[in-house]
Amino acid sequence: MKRRIYLNMKSLGEARSLWLERFRNHPVLEAVSVPVPDALGRVTAEPVFARLSSPTFHAAAMDGIAVRSDGTYGAGDRSPRRLIIGEEAFWVNTGHPLPEGCDAVIMVEHLHEVEADVVEIRASAYPWQNVRKVGEDIVASELLFPRRHRVRAFDLGALIAAGIHEVRVFEIPRVAVIPTGDELVDPATVGLDETPSHGWTPDSNSAVLCGMVRECGGTPLIRPIVGDDPEELKSAVRSALDAGVHLVIVNAGSSAGSEDYTYQVLDALGEVLVHGVAMMPGKPTILADVRGIPVVGNPGYPVSAALSFDQFVRPLLIVMQGRRESFRPRIPVRISRAIPSKLGVEEFLRVRLGRVGGRVVATPLSRGAGLITTLTRAEGMIRISELSQGVDAESDVEAELLVDPEELDRTLVFIGSHDLSVDVLADLLRGYPRGYRLSSANVGSLGGLLALRNRFAHAAGCHLLDTETGQYNLSYVRKYLKGFKASLFHLVDREQGFMVARGNPKGVCGVGDLLREDVRFVNRQAGSGTRILLDYRLAQEGIDPRKICGYDHEEYTHMAVAVDVRSGAADVGLGILAAAMALGLDFVPLVREQYDLVIPTEYVEEERIQSLLMVAGSDPFRERVRAMGGYHPEKSGRLWLEVE
Amino acid sequence: MKRRIYLNMKSLGEARSLWLERFRNHPVLEAVSVPVPDALGRVTAEPVFARLSSPTFHAAAMDGIAVRSDGTYGAGDRSPRRLIIGEEAFWVNTGHPLPEGCDAVIMVEHLHEVEADVVEIRASAYPWQNVRKVGEDIVASELLFPRRHRVRAFDLGALIAAGIHEVRVFEIPRVAVIPTGDELVDPATVGLDETPSHGWTPDSNSAVLCGMVRECGGTPLIRPIVGDDPEELKSAVRSALDAGVHLVIVNAGSSAGSEDYTYQVLDALGEVLVHGVAMMPGKPTILADVRGIPVVGNPGYPVSAALSFDQFVRPLLIVMQGRRESFRPRIPVRISRAIPSKLGVEEFLRVRLGRVGGRVVATPLSRGAGLITTLTRAEGMIRISELSQGVDAESDVEAELLVDPEELDRTLVFIGSHDLSVDVLADLLRGYPRGYRLSSANVGSLGGLLALRNRFAHAAGCHLLDTETGQYNLSYVRKYLKGFKASLFHLVDREQGFMVARGNPKGVCGVGDLLREDVRFVNRQAGSGTRILLDYRLAQEGIDPRKICGYDHEEYTHMAVAVDVRSGAADVGLGILAAAMALGLDFVPLVREQYDLVIPTEYVEEERIQSLLMVAGSDPFRERVRAMGGYHPEKSGRLWLEVE
Repeated sequence: MKRRIYLNMKSLGEARSLWLERFRNHPVLEAVSVPVPDALGRVTAEPVFARLSSPTFHAAAMDGIAVRSDGTYGAGDRSPRRLIIGEEAFWVNTGHPLPEGCDAVIMVEHLHEVEADVVEIRASAYPWQNVRKVGEDIVASELLFPRRHRVRAFDLGALIAAGIHEVRVFEIPRVAVIPTGDELVDPATVGLDETPSHGWTPDSNSAVLCGMVRECGGTPLIRPIVGDDPEELKSAVRSALDAGVHLVIVNAGSSAGSEDYTYQVLDALGEVLVHGVAMMPGKPTILADVRGIPVVGNPGYPVSAALSFDQFVRPLLIVMQGRRESFRPRIPVRISRAIPSKLGVEEFLRVRLGRVGGRVVATPLSRGAGLITTLTRAEGMIRISELSQGVDAESDVEAELLVDPEELDRTLVFIGSHDLSVDVLADLLRGYPRGYRLSSANVGSLGGLLALRNRFAHAAGCHLLDTETGQYNLSYVRKYLKGFKASLFHLVDREQGFMVARGNPKGVCGVGDLLREDVRFVNRQAGSGTRILLDYRLAQEGIDPRKICGYDHEEYTHMAVAVDVRSGAADVGLGILAAAMALGLDFVPLVREQYDLVIPTEYVEEERIQSLLMVAGSDPFRERVRAMGGYHPEKSGRLWLEVE
Repeated sequence: MKRRIYLNMKSLGEARSLWLERFRNHPVLEAVSVPVPDALGRVTAEPVFARLSSPTFHAAAMDGIAVRSDGTYGAGDRSPRRLIIGEEAFWVNTGHPLPEGCDAVIMVEHLHEVEADVVEIRASAYPWQNVRKVGEDIVASELLFPRRHRVRAFDLGALIAAGIHEVRVFEIPRVAVIPTGDELVDPATVGLDETPSHGWTPDSNSAVLCGMVRECGGTPLIRPIVGDDPEELKSAVRSALDAGVHLVIVNAGSSAGSEDYTYQVLDALGEVLVHGVAMMPGKPTILADVRGIPVVGNPGYPVSAALSFDQFVRPLLIVMQGRRESFRPRIPVRISRAIPSKLGVEEFLRVRLGRVGGRVVATPLSRGAGLITTLTRAEGMIRISELSQGVDAESDVEAELLVDPEELDRTLVFIGSHDLSVDVLADLLRGYPRGYRLSSANVGSLGGLLALRNRFAHAAGCHLLDTETGQYNLSYVRKYLKGFKASLFHLVDREQGFMVARGNPKGVCGVGDLLREDVRFVNRQAGSGTRILLDYRLAQEGIDPRKICGYDHEEYTHMAVAVDVRSGAADVGLGILAAAMALGLDFVPLVREQYDLVIPTEYVEEERIQSLLMVAGSDPFRERVRAMGGYHPEKSGRLWLEVE
């Protein structure tokens, strides 16, 4: 039970200063010469001075005739003057050099042709009119760009115009990524028909880290996977350093587990500056200096790996290249629910964002560091200071944006009950010319109505059975959206039933079977339409829920219930046919129910909502939903009721 | 004198709609499959659904022991319970699969070791505690990304975790760039020792356009230079189309000059939608549809070429890739002087920007479409609507940013007299850890003081001789900065004198020679320190300026004067030794003068200014300035006077 502790856990701020100060002034990158066209996006390592002037000759700035200005004096409306082409005047086009002795150009529009070789002018020319003089744009020897200038496309034009062939830029930083862990398997080696063997984890972090290195302008070098063996790891780090990289990332083995050797190895090879950072996710980060090269022990959980990279690797790579660290845009947002957070740890909370009724609302995603989808689905991140114990519900906080700011205006915030047809809506909506983004959070039908009431969403998915009237949704909307005008649109009718393992080994046929001792049930959370349906059926049959094994085991989505059944964590769960089909489960139909879109009437005319309804009523939606099984989308997209 | 006119000149808005509407729904890009790691930055052409769940097995979420939860019930502080390792409990590390039959993990911190194979627990485990269940992150069959999603680094993690090997993304658009013009020469073919032959222009636009294509995510294909011959151009366009590109840019020949054949060629090959756009720069733009492929006749002036690309090629390339056009950030700025603009034409005015005294100030750069440096030096662009006749001085307008917004806070706005040592300051300041940007505009010494008074700059370069006291700057600062506290810092003492062609062919030795009929002078603008110096010397010698040939020929910088002398546009000009040396001119010394930095005292404590002064006082500055010749930087960076 011996465990190493985090030897010198640091706050994020301390860790960053220690780290960046150590390497900030290490000019590890060399200057290299590249041909001008290849300098795009690179950063100058030295100032660039013009070799030639531009233009290099006096050039016509207009189409017309080149003349000596002093030969035109006196010309006027009443005293037109004739010039002989080839002697006193010369045809030139824009960009052409002025003939020797000329110092002005008269525009073709101001000429009056007399005969083939004679033109008439009715105004005199002043010296250098319509002429681009030598050096007008660039003068030889002048500073074109200081050092540390990132070369943009139009900068290439100035470089070429100034006669520059090659530019001295910083070399591109090379970063070794060393994946470690006995459980890791190279995803490329797993055939498409196979599922990974039990206990093997595809190495997804390496691709993420390499991608992040690329996003920072570096070149990643992915090294072979190293097992949980300190000697093997040591030699992998050494060989990466010998390969002349500028930074090494060891992923993972950075925490304090019994097979986490990264600390031990880096401590032996060099100096560990930080072991453990008070950030969440991302705590098990190791920052070390090995032979003057920065080496990072990156955490293994995917979100931790990405956030630790963001805080420690990204700034260093940027600074190395002579660039300035740029920060994500921040905007004020209203958070939908309270988030308690640990004092002394800075938390990076991933949130869904969207503009609802004039303000940007944030719905927190799950906080698990192991859930990469909490990053991929997030539109923003809220940083909760280590000095704070969390944020209150409905409070205003600042969010860092993970998407373009204008994306928020194109985001449709959907919340409520989970249904697979919503994924289809999301995809079709994105393919629509306006490219709307459907941001969805699954909080159950009642949760969706409450989110609408608090103005945290544009639309809610809802299938709440009124057990007294047998009607869906209406009475709930009246109760929970009191004072609101709301519009109810059909989305789908769908089959609910028991999901069981293939072949129905426990022979479940109805709610009565849930009482059997050999049947483990998995439930949906309170407030979900499916839970209300179950409780209604149990009451009808006079069954005491407390007698059902697994009634307390709650999941938040149909798919999570299906997964429990599929993986043997439960024998039966209530859910939709499509979820059962998606995971290859058998299905015992119970009821056909109505799943609606509830939308506050004030939003209905918004273009986002109109697009949503158009997509919901479209043939492609109906076809794709029908193909999933158990869906009846005949009335999808149609308004069936307005509630005042 | 026959000229084609712009057949159907359109407003920018009309032209864009016509163009984008024509091609918006042409799905010219095909979907291609790429391995997941190569999908970075690409846009999905189809929705991506998870193939596998993640995790694919129930995994330990902590280091500790895996147990069956129902075997731990009843354990408590007063009723500890012993578990036999290998039978009732199994060591697991984070990420490891749970052994068959286990459904919970107890953290190692909560264990009490009894003997080697026995542990004691003092609390019971609940089902699924510290376990990452199958599908917790991703459930097989769920939508990972809709179509038209741009893949970021962490998205790769979700794809790999979900068992995806390849993604369907849009292919990368290929863009042919066809340079045309008899005067063009491939810059790569010009040796470094040569200057381009008289009348030849290095083709810099192709590199800029190719770079812009790359910045938009496309692949540029640069084609051989085509002469001013319609048949040659026609076959070049045809062969580009035959090569299967998605867009063709012909640069240039798009205006209405006698050798501008692009319109004629595109009209013959396909349909010209627009010829001439009411934008400046950028008017001679041709937009055509040839065999269903967009073909752009791009203007020849470098700024026009870039801005026309920005308005017509960029949005199309972005939309083709299923992405949304993103716009540059806009901020409110205060403009330093009035800019009249032509009604009916939308002008893109390039401006220098910086934050001075809490607001962002804009100083317009030259408006010439031929000056690429007006783009490379600009921090922003002000669009003057075609409905407006311009902007008033000191008015608030909106600017599009060409640099990162935070760059403005690191920009030091320098204005006033031009000196080559300011380039050295700019370079050294940028190399400084904070990476400040020195944004300089040359308006002469008096112009600099006026800019300070109007709070349009942080610092002014000033060398104004008080002809009564013989002292530099002080009386001017007292007069023009009345009511301001200002600090005067030494920058350099420098040699002023006559710049003449090498060998001094006209034998100029003093101001008296300026009266000679065979000597053409080039002057500096009124308000510049050099002009004041000249006028003072002329008065001393009793010379009437009106008798000097070229007294009215004004330039704004030392280098421009030197260029005039170098190119033979003038025989003599007054300027600094360094400018003469830079262009290989001879120099007749006249006077040693003092060039100061004038800084409003309220800014002196700002970090930007402190860095500037530190750099000015540093050895590298002094060494580089001395090497340029004619400079005496002994006191550089030192405060010599504070004026109340």
